[in-house]
Amino acid sequence: MTVEGKLRAAIVGSTGYGGVELIRLLQGHPKVEITSVISSSSAGEPIENGFPHLTGVFHRNLDGVDAAEIKERADVVFTATPAGVSAKLAPQLLEVGLKVIDLSGDFRLKDGGEYERWYKHPAPEESYLQQAVFGLCEVFGDRAAGAEFISNPGCYPTATLLGLIPALKAGWIKPESIIVDAKSGVSGAGRGVNVGVHYAEVNENFKAYKINKHQHIPEIEQTLTEIAGEPVTVTFTTHLVPMTRGIMATMYAGMNGAYSEQDFVDLYRNYYEGRSFVRVRDAGIWPATKEVSGSNYCDIGFAADARTGRVTIISVIDNLVKGAAGQAIQNLNLMMGWEETLGLGYTPVYP
Amino acid sequence: MTVEGKLRAAIVGSTGYGGVELIRLLQGHPKVEITSVISSSSAGEPIENGFPHLTGVFHRNLDGVDAAEIKERADVVFTATPAGVSAKLAPQLLEVGLKVIDLSGDFRLKDGGEYERWYKHPAPEESYLQQAVFGLCEVFGDRAAGAEFISNPGCYPTATLLGLIPALKAGWIKPESIIVDAKSGVSGAGRGVNVGVHYAEVNENFKAYKINKHQHIPEIEQTLTEIAGEPVTVTFTTHLVPMTRGIMATMYAGMNGAYSEQDFVDLYRNYYEGRSFVRVRDAGIWPATKEVSGSNYCDIGFAADARTGRVTIISVIDNLVKGAAGQAIQNLNLMMGWEETLGLGYTPVYP
Amino acid sequence: MTVEGKLRAAIVGSTGYGGVELIRLLQGHPKVEITSVISSSSAGEPIENGFPHLTGVFHRNLDGVDAAEIKERADVVFTATPAGVSAKLAPQLLEVGLKVIDLSGDFRLKDGGEYERWYKHPAPEESYLQQAVFGLCEVFGDRAAGAEFISNPGCYPTATLLGLIPALKAGWIKPESIIVDAKSGVSGAGRGVNVGVHYAEVNENFKAYKINKHQHIPEIEQTLTEIAGEPVTVTFTTHLVPMTRGIMATMYAGMNGAYSEQDFVDLYRNYYEGRSFVRVRDAGIWPATKEVSGSNYCDIGFAADARTGRVTIISVIDNLVKGAAGQAIQNLNLMMGWEETLGLGYTPVYP
Amino acid sequence: MTVEGKLRAAIVGSTGYGGVELIRLLQGHPKVEITSVISSSSAGEPIENGFPHLTGVFHRNLDGVDAAEIKERADVVFTATPAGVSAKLAPQLLEVGLKVIDLSGDFRLKDGGEYERWYKHPAPEESYLQQAVFGLCEVFGDRAAGAEFISNPGCYPTATLLGLIPALKAGWIKPESIIVDAKSGVSGAGRGVNVGVHYAEVNENFKAYKINKHQHIPEIEQTLTEIAGEPVTVTFTTHLVPMTRGIMATMYAGMNGAYSEQDFVDLYRNYYEGRSFVRVRDAGIWPATKEVSGSNYCDIGFAADARTGRVTIISVIDNLVKGAAGQAIQNLNLMMGWEETLGLGYTPVYP
Repeated sequence: MTVEGKLRAAIVGSTGYGGVELIRLLQGHPKVEITSVISSSSAGEPIENGFPHLTGVFHRNLDGVDAAEIKERADVVFTATPAGVSAKLAPQLLEVGLKVIDLSGDFRLKDGGEYERWYKHPAPEESYLQQAVFGLCEVFGDRAAGAEFISNPGCYPTATLLGLIPALKAGWIKPESIIVDAKSGVSGAGRGVNVGVHYAEVNENFKAYKINKHQHIPEIEQTLTEIAGEPVTVTFTTHLVPMTRGIMATMYAGMNGAYSEQDFVDLYRNYYEGRSFVRVRDAGIWPATKEVSGSNYCDIGFAADARTGRVTIISVIDNLVKGAAGQAIQNLNLMMGWEETLGLGYTPVYP
Repeated sequence: MTVEGKLRAAIVGSTGYGGVELIRLLQGHPKVEITSVISSSSAGEPIENGFPHLTGVFHRNLDGVDAAEIKERADVVFTATPAGVSAKLAPQLLEVGLKVIDLSGDFRLKDGGEYERWYKHPAPEESYLQQAVFGLCEVFGDRAAGAEFISNPGCYPTATLLGLIPALKAGWIKPESIIVDAKSGVSGAGRGVNVGVHYAEVNENFKAYKINKHQHIPEIEQTLTEIAGEPVTVTFTTHLVPMTRGIMATMYAGMNGAYSEQDFVDLYRNYYEGRSFVRVRDAGIWPATKEVSGSNYCDIGFAADARTGRVTIISVIDNLVKGAAGQAIQNLNLMMGWEETLGLGYTPVYP
Repeated sequence: MTVEGKLRAAIVGSTGYGGVELIRLLQGHPKVEITSVISSSSAGEPIENGFPHLTGVFHRNLDGVDAAEIKERADVVFTATPAGVSAKLAPQLLEVGLKVIDLSGDFRLKDGGEYERWYKHPAPEESYLQQAVFGLCEVFGDRAAGAEFISNPGCYPTATLLGLIPALKAGWIKPESIIVDAKSGVSGAGRGVNVGVHYAEVNENFKAYKINKHQHIPEIEQTLTEIAGEPVTVTFTTHLVPMTRGIMATMYAGMNGAYSEQDFVDLYRNYYEGRSFVRVRDAGIWPATKEVSGSNYCDIGFAADARTGRVTIISVIDNLVKGAAGQAIQNLNLMMGWEETLGLGYTPVYP
Repeated sequence: MTVEGKLRAAIVGSTGYGGVELIRLLQGHPKVEITSVISSSSAGEPIENGFPHLTGVFHRNLDGVDAAEIKERADVVFTATPAGVSAKLAPQLLEVGLKVIDLSGDFRLKDGGEYERWYKHPAPEESYLQQAVFGLCEVFGDRAAGAEFISNPGCYPTATLLGLIPALKAGWIKPESIIVDAKSGVSGAGRGVNVGVHYAEVNENFKAYKINKHQHIPEIEQTLTEIAGEPVTVTFTTHLVPMTRGIMATMYAGMNGAYSEQDFVDLYRNYYEGRSFVRVRDAGIWPATKEVSGSNYCDIGFAADARTGRVTIISVIDNLVKGAAGQAIQNLNLMMGWEETLGLGYTPVYP
């Protein structure tokens, strides 16, 4: 099942930012070989035509989308496809016996009705919703081991959940008080064109969008509800930052006690012990997005305020790495029983 | 007291961003003539040396700081000086009979002890703290009429207070629930150099700073406390956005009832009736910072969430105009009994 | 023919960047009233829907394109339409008796064959090509006086020609040696969407495009040929800079003598005497694009190199002002016999 | 001489952008271990204090500058120090028996007098100037093999020389006609602070600087003169682009014949055969800086113009990789007789 002992991987949606980042990262993976890059819109063309940075690095003509053909060429498939497309494609790929890691939002919610309310698409078939493992590695990594089908978490949920779960699980914060003020670079919107991503409209501009309406909200609430053991509803705002990569979630919650910043640091370091992609910063130090750029890290910092009884939690990731392609590879590693850091040892690019 | 019927204005701190924006804006004011630009560090040099965009637009050699000499040349002085400097200078200028509009933070707090806790400088003399009118034009404009000494609000407080006051005054939001997540462009940090404003450190970066520690917090709380008639404490986070101009305050508060977005729009339009620099957007429309760039507008939008019982309020300004030089000129207009819009009819620069 | 003594102006193409900048600038013009904003694609909608920065500043529903109706409402029309559209529209507008200032490239070349070679469209009718005055104000301003039809120069040609003409006319530089290395912000590409203007593709990127193929080349060569009295061919490279506004042309030419930088400064100041929108910088000082941002200035500087016998000339403009809407208004002023600076006294926005 | 079979490397100037990029890149080098990071200004502090992106990636307290101590810890030293500092330090390091790769400009010129004219510092001792190998890998790689002391080329010279040498060597371009219009991101200016690198001054700005005066000019001319076998003098302009990383050199030269773009492509591909870090693009395709970002590539494209008889050559690099740290490691590889690509297989980060 391998090329020279390597696992063979196919990428559907290779001409989007998630897909092309998978190519970049997998170039450095010692146990994986990309054997097919797939695009419904550009099949037949060399991928370097649209992405000349790959010239001399990775050459392959784009293949069309056909489950049986993919099965000929690959053992595992990353589907970096838009919501609605994966819903139909992933089951076909699973049926022919491929392992699937889906980067879309289609299989993240267990409740199909909830999916339809937020995504405005018909939900995927129930059995696949239940089969899909929600691959938030540092929290549910044990579920990924040996799985055939992993649903990779969204970018906002990854930053948010890694920032909230240890405190929520410990009962240090009030579930009903959680407010998430999230900010993302433009690559999170994908490579599709519209006036909202035009350089002249984004540059020197900061804007809010989809307030309390973002389709990542139910995924956050579903997980927080599981952790808290009671229904959790969040206030959630998304903003567009004039930069290409990076997400910061600034999170607010009322505390159930007089915890200090050092208490939070200790709690989180304990929770994430042995998980090298979460870096809990020293008390009083808050991470910035550039400090994780190009890498799979999620950095977290705290400000506990005795005046108001609230804690402010800062969590940052590179939306295309830990928020998409990097975590997908981390999930592959867990799925295969490999070290979760394999092929992901990228030092952040700074400046 | 005038040059050809115009009021003579001096600007102390002309080589900072606030000072040079005052020059830009006052070039278009029909009743004001800049008769002195003052800088302690560069006295004697033509201002165009440091700011070549003024070549052929405004020529004057920088003067030194001397209250008596300023009195010879001017009727009103804008002090765009760092905190700590205005504390000593403004009283001198007032003593020689000048009107003063201070853009620093030195005279915004009525309680000197509070000033010292947040600013870590000795407070100005008590009598001047009491004399200074806190010039948030759309709220306290009547206090500015005929005043000799106005303390211009800070950039964050302007965006925040204009966004919160109508709802707080109406009793629609819970005072103890207010959280402000604020974001600013880099010009807000001034023109002084340090590695934190180095282009390569700021570009493609989003960072939080001074969480719950920003010196603009007491100014916000002092005003909200006055409006609410009870002590108000806020959770306040400041972030640096990779852009030059613009502030957005994203504000969260629990509602005291089931108000809709349209309710908020109506309430705010009613409150700000006749004040043309506040533009309350239609329900469901949130303003972006670029939509006010270069202008004196403060734009406000709402998201009311029945799920959580919270309202999210978005308020944007250009930090150098409505957050500094523009509001200072608006205060001058009010002080002099002129139309508050005089000389401030700048259309936002877009894109 | 006027509204309250003002000239009535219509703008075709109001929803492009050139059109919306005309609206911004004309808001400050004392003798012009915008009476119609026209867009073939969005007729019927309020212009603020697409451009919320105009909220409360300028309200009007977009009109459709109909020459007779425009004639009812306006005296002069600015056509900020794509190449190929103006070719047909401008003659219709002229026929019904309107004055026309065309911002497209359709009427800049006197030779229809040359137009077709570079623009790949059928050329406009010959008589209109001949009637159109090429409105490079500081050079051909006398031709604009009383004209009915002005073709506004392109952004690259404006920066380039103002930078080269005085030296070429004086015979100081060798016509066959001219190389122009030009750089533009992204707004020059217009508001249309394609992957080439996607924020994530432009940001942190510098690229060359259309080398020796840009459709502004023949317009430059036509004018330089007229000035030199002999055929002039230029090497011309265009680059896209990750910024919104601004053009710099860096120009190289062999000198016909041992001229110093001061010689060039004196020559240019003499040539542009009385034209306040061209600012010739002191010897050894080169302008930057931000120093003219938002204004109608063209700033020029020089480096004369005895080692190589070449002069390097730097010329900067704001592509949307002096390179489009600002120069169009300057042309209107000249056409009407008004002061050329009327309504254009915008101080550059800095920073 | 090794740690677990690895070569021990020290980096002097570890807190500058060149130094910190060496750390990032060497993290992935299979045969090198960083055993000392050195900074005269911050000795004793953990490097993560100033560069938190290294948290959990690379931990070491900064050492002071002492040749004997460095010799205890390392086999090779990278000196990423300012011009003037290396001049004194490198000889000391060589004297104690260390291999040295100097990233400063101090040892690039063979003529000490020329150094003093351009750098305004006293030249290093003559014998060291002669000993230093100018490490432009793809051109002089054979000289690096076995060398003890390599002077790493500057960022502008690397982009320029790789773009010009094949054509110059082939006699296809006229040496006296060469004009280089170069553009750089801000990280090229280093991490030192001054108003010229303040975000608000650089953002939305494009400026020229040091026209014909840049200290990289003599290094370019020295090499072109050697290649051409006759004195070559260039016209050279440097510009600052509002971006962090990337250099483009746009080069112009008169051709000695009617060469096509394909001719140039063939010539360059032949010249650079087997050197995988130079990617010659297909005819009619010009590289953009983002396409090499974070990688050691130099990409080159051509436009040959029959109308003017000139060729335009575009060459791009990441100034911190191929223009500094990456080429330094490539030189180490050549020095040690390893594959030149060892540890440098970074795929460009896109977008």
